[in-house]
Amino acid sequence: MNKLLFTVIAVFVSSILFAQNAFSQSKIDTKTLNSKVLNADRDYTIYLPKSYQTDSERRYPVLYLLHGMTETNKTWQNNMRLKEVADRLMESGDAKEMIIVTPNAGGDLSKNQWNGYFNMPGWEYETFFFDEFIPFIENNYRVKSDKNNRAVAGLSMGGGGTVVYAQKHSDMFCAAYAMSALVSLNNLTASGDENEITMHLYRSVLANDCIKFVENADDNTKNNLRTVSWFIDCGDDDFLLDNNVDFTRAMKKAAIPYQFRVRDGGHTSEYWHTALYLCIPFVSRNFDN
Amino acid sequence: MNKLLFTVIAVFVSSILFAQNAFSQSKIDTKTLNSKVLNADRDYTIYLPKSYQTDSERRYPVLYLLHGMTETNKTWQNNMRLKEVADRLMESGDAKEMIIVTPNAGGDLSKNQWNGYFNMPGWEYETFFFDEFIPFIENNYRVKSDKNNRAVAGLSMGGGGTVVYAQKHSDMFCAAYAMSALVSLNNLTASGDENEITMHLYRSVLANDCIKFVENADDNTKNNLRTVSWFIDCGDDDFLLDNNVDFTRAMKKAAIPYQFRVRDGGHTSEYWHTALYLCIPFVSRNFDN
Amino acid sequence: MNKLLFTVIAVFVSSILFAQNAFSQSKIDTKTLNSKVLNADRDYTIYLPKSYQTDSERRYPVLYLLHGMTETNKTWQNNMRLKEVADRLMESGDAKEMIIVTPNAGGDLSKNQWNGYFNMPGWEYETFFFDEFIPFIENNYRVKSDKNNRAVAGLSMGGGGTVVYAQKHSDMFCAAYAMSALVSLNNLTASGDENEITMHLYRSVLANDCIKFVENADDNTKNNLRTVSWFIDCGDDDFLLDNNVDFTRAMKKAAIPYQFRVRDGGHTSEYWHTALYLCIPFVSRNFDN
Amino acid sequence: MNKLLFTVIAVFVSSILFAQNAFSQSKIDTKTLNSKVLNADRDYTIYLPKSYQTDSERRYPVLYLLHGMTETNKTWQNNMRLKEVADRLMESGDAKEMIIVTPNAGGDLSKNQWNGYFNMPGWEYETFFFDEFIPFIENNYRVKSDKNNRAVAGLSMGGGGTVVYAQKHSDMFCAAYAMSALVSLNNLTASGDENEITMHLYRSVLANDCIKFVENADDNTKNNLRTVSWFIDCGDDDFLLDNNVDFTRAMKKAAIPYQFRVRDGGHTSEYWHTALYLCIPFVSRNFDN
Repeated sequence: MNKLLFTVIAVFVSSILFAQNAFSQSKIDTKTLNSKVLNADRDYTIYLPKSYQTDSERRYPVLYLLHGMTETNKTWQNNMRLKEVADRLMESGDAKEMIIVTPNAGGDLSKNQWNGYFNMPGWEYETFFFDEFIPFIENNYRVKSDKNNRAVAGLSMGGGGTVVYAQKHSDMFCAAYAMSALVSLNNLTASGDENEITMHLYRSVLANDCIKFVENADDNTKNNLRTVSWFIDCGDDDFLLDNNVDFTRAMKKAAIPYQFRVRDGGHTSEYWHTALYLCIPFVSRNFDN
Repeated sequence: MNKLLFTVIAVFVSSILFAQNAFSQSKIDTKTLNSKVLNADRDYTIYLPKSYQTDSERRYPVLYLLHGMTETNKTWQNNMRLKEVADRLMESGDAKEMIIVTPNAGGDLSKNQWNGYFNMPGWEYETFFFDEFIPFIENNYRVKSDKNNRAVAGLSMGGGGTVVYAQKHSDMFCAAYAMSALVSLNNLTASGDENEITMHLYRSVLANDCIKFVENADDNTKNNLRTVSWFIDCGDDDFLLDNNVDFTRAMKKAAIPYQFRVRDGGHTSEYWHTALYLCIPFVSRNFDN
Repeated sequence: MNKLLFTVIAVFVSSILFAQNAFSQSKIDTKTLNSKVLNADRDYTIYLPKSYQTDSERRYPVLYLLHGMTETNKTWQNNMRLKEVADRLMESGDAKEMIIVTPNAGGDLSKNQWNGYFNMPGWEYETFFFDEFIPFIENNYRVKSDKNNRAVAGLSMGGGGTVVYAQKHSDMFCAAYAMSALVSLNNLTASGDENEITMHLYRSVLANDCIKFVENADDNTKNNLRTVSWFIDCGDDDFLLDNNVDFTRAMKKAAIPYQFRVRDGGHTSEYWHTALYLCIPFVSRNFDN
Repeated sequence: MNKLLFTVIAVFVSSILFAQNAFSQSKIDTKTLNSKVLNADRDYTIYLPKSYQTDSERRYPVLYLLHGMTETNKTWQNNMRLKEVADRLMESGDAKEMIIVTPNAGGDLSKNQWNGYFNMPGWEYETFFFDEFIPFIENNYRVKSDKNNRAVAGLSMGGGGTVVYAQKHSDMFCAAYAMSALVSLNNLTASGDENEITMHLYRSVLANDCIKFVENADDNTKNNLRTVSWFIDCGDDDFLLDNNVDFTRAMKKAAIPYQFRVRDGGHTSEYWHTALYLCIPFVSRNFDN
């Protein structure tokens, strides 16, 4: 054995050490905060970039990344491999280092777990998000806390949350990236045996119609909407494409600039995984610009 | 509730049904065969495309997809999401329907589990692969069994396996796609405390040097190598890039055509995940051409 | 000077020779045929792949590539660099070798030059295309002459021509790729001082509405439309996007499968240049499949 | 005619007007300056972004984009469609607005026109570039004049110029993007009948070997080189790939970070056209970062 002038293990070990030094000190954690608004503990999952540990004074821009219905704060990592994509984009320089955080706004609807990003009777999630969650993140992590360093993105129900949050709080986000977004319920048809929690969710989505918001916007609101960079991304096989198209038509009519892409695919985790390759550089370009 | 003229659940359900009909009848299974050559049971994981269940007479081209060191037959699905990528590419038409199968050639080296694609004293894996595994697949699944419908691909140790199998059996594969391939051990340095199983692996890699194979090839062998379509793909941060470059230089000198790409990234699962988007269409184009 | 052991010129010269041997024997020519239907000479521009000169018995699949309004047969090469893209895709294997031909269906409208792909009083272009031009190409070049080896693609007015030709002659084309297509005139508003040639063009487009064709299709026609592979590609800033979306909605309602992409850009030559990277591999995959 | 409720012309006209307002006020001009260093008039071609005309106080980052041997300042536009790509990337937000300028460092070698970016007996181009050209641009256009807003890029001979300029003036450029770069003459072989102008060029390239510069760099120089963001991009069929690989190996050994890509293609205008889609966003990300 000592005659061998090589070893793969040695190479792998040094490769792993190299990787740790060069681009893998990022980490992703799941933690909990207590919400007085919701009267409950809520989990969140947070990605901290490589230099976060070593550069102990530096503050970072932040992306709030929203999950979909029946999903939770862990889904972006478990199904869409958030950390792997973020590491790669930040290592290559395609995106600036940033903090990415997903709060839990979901769970199993059939078990009466609350889902949704809006205020509902008994579950004021939007109030929680803006009055408790954002301040909590800003107090507990070194994030920059101005509009120019805060973005929001999300998929499906979280894509609707993305648009609505940026519509109603256009002073708080520089960029919004909506994937396969539930922007409206207009075109959808009824079943009739949803439980009460589900009905609260539907009513809240109905009350926060993204298309009507644009159609009803006055000049001042339209001006505010123009201060956000918008990106709408929906697959050609997605059952929500029609609604997304209608949303872009309303935006165009209101002369609010946006990017729109229809890529290959349906309402699937692989679509959202690949969307991260567009989303993270997009919000990065809009930070501090 | 009955006043609501919509329901998201209904849409999701119909969407899921639609998805099942339209592009999700593919499946991925893990099964076992008994090898007389290895005197052991070996697992394999197999992807069967959408139409496989319904089109009961049809035969399919086949891709043998090899995993890396310390990995197993399950790694391509668990870490690189093989099914999700394959479904998407076949649904859009970017790739033809095909069967994709990964045999187990690995496991935990520290627990003395055999690793490697070549013949070693006590573990004749290459013999198993060609004499038992390929015939087993061809007898138990509706695969086309000619060179023009058989391809091989793999990552790292499996990238080396890919090149060597296609070099030594150029009459059997129309295409070979090597990712971050361990094509040689020349440049690697020694540690000295590997166990015997590991040393068998190293000696087998040393004995199957892909670069020397090309350098030593006679005209007849070179002609045979030209009947395979070659694709070499390695990240700009990969510690194996130098070896891969040297392999392409040997191929160029021998006038054997190949595609070569250096994309962004290191020796990571995300690199190989994205490699599938190139690999599967590449082998598809070469099937039956 | 003779002390120098190198020379860039030598390298460039050998590089150019290498290029000629390896991937540059393709050529693009502009020629003329006489049309009895149109009672006029008409130019066309034809791309012949690398092996066409040397492989004197081989027959090739053919792509009919249609230009836009006020453009001519030369525009695909002059503005969109057809040959450079085709050479690259065929050299890498991303597309099979094929013949690509653009007939002249345009020119300066203000100078009363006929434009358009349909039959108009005094200018029966569709009759010319199917009764004279396709037979002429098949008689004068080694093209395969079956549906499985014939595709059509085009931009703007030629995108409309693409869809209409494949709708009315679904037995003749295996694939149709429409870029920024003028599929309908419904949404457009009037000026009132067009000349007679222009009015013929408009009336012919109005009479060949792609959306209405799908809406009015009976079951048999729908079945025929399903034998063509459809690809609709339109930029997010294109003024024709709304019409293209409406066309995909009609196709979806009729259960005719298609690919749909909205990429970044407007009604520009750079959009169509980049579309070639999708179009040529798409038709290639559909040839003889 | 007045019965028609539409007109394509009207749409085209309004489309063109829309385009002009929305994203086409950029312009590209060719102008001349007189060089005392060279004792000659020299042309340059300059791209001014959309807002340059209307935002009369704003200053812009600047990219110096170098052409190849026998080419001139006009080649980036004529062969690689610089304006079309730049417009598209800046309109979508993939790149910040910037000024892009190409000085003339070439022409017909056989007619004894000087080529090259370095100082030669009788043609001190590097002196001209740094002492006259950059100051001229900074005095005559609203460019930001600090390292963080100045980048350099180029192809072939201009790729070599890019690397050398950023090596010798690392305090002046935040980013360098080298395409198919002539980084060295080591591997090239001799012809012997070059004219004197050509020999001056070769000797100047030999004297400015990018690989040796890195190999010979002391620690201070290496530190300076680490203040530049490097991107090396070369095609898998390019005859200069070996030299580019050797350059990246020297960089790696010296622990100077860089991005490296090998994409599909040779030493062709289409390779460089597509390189612009990587280059312009890359330098944009590095501006003022």
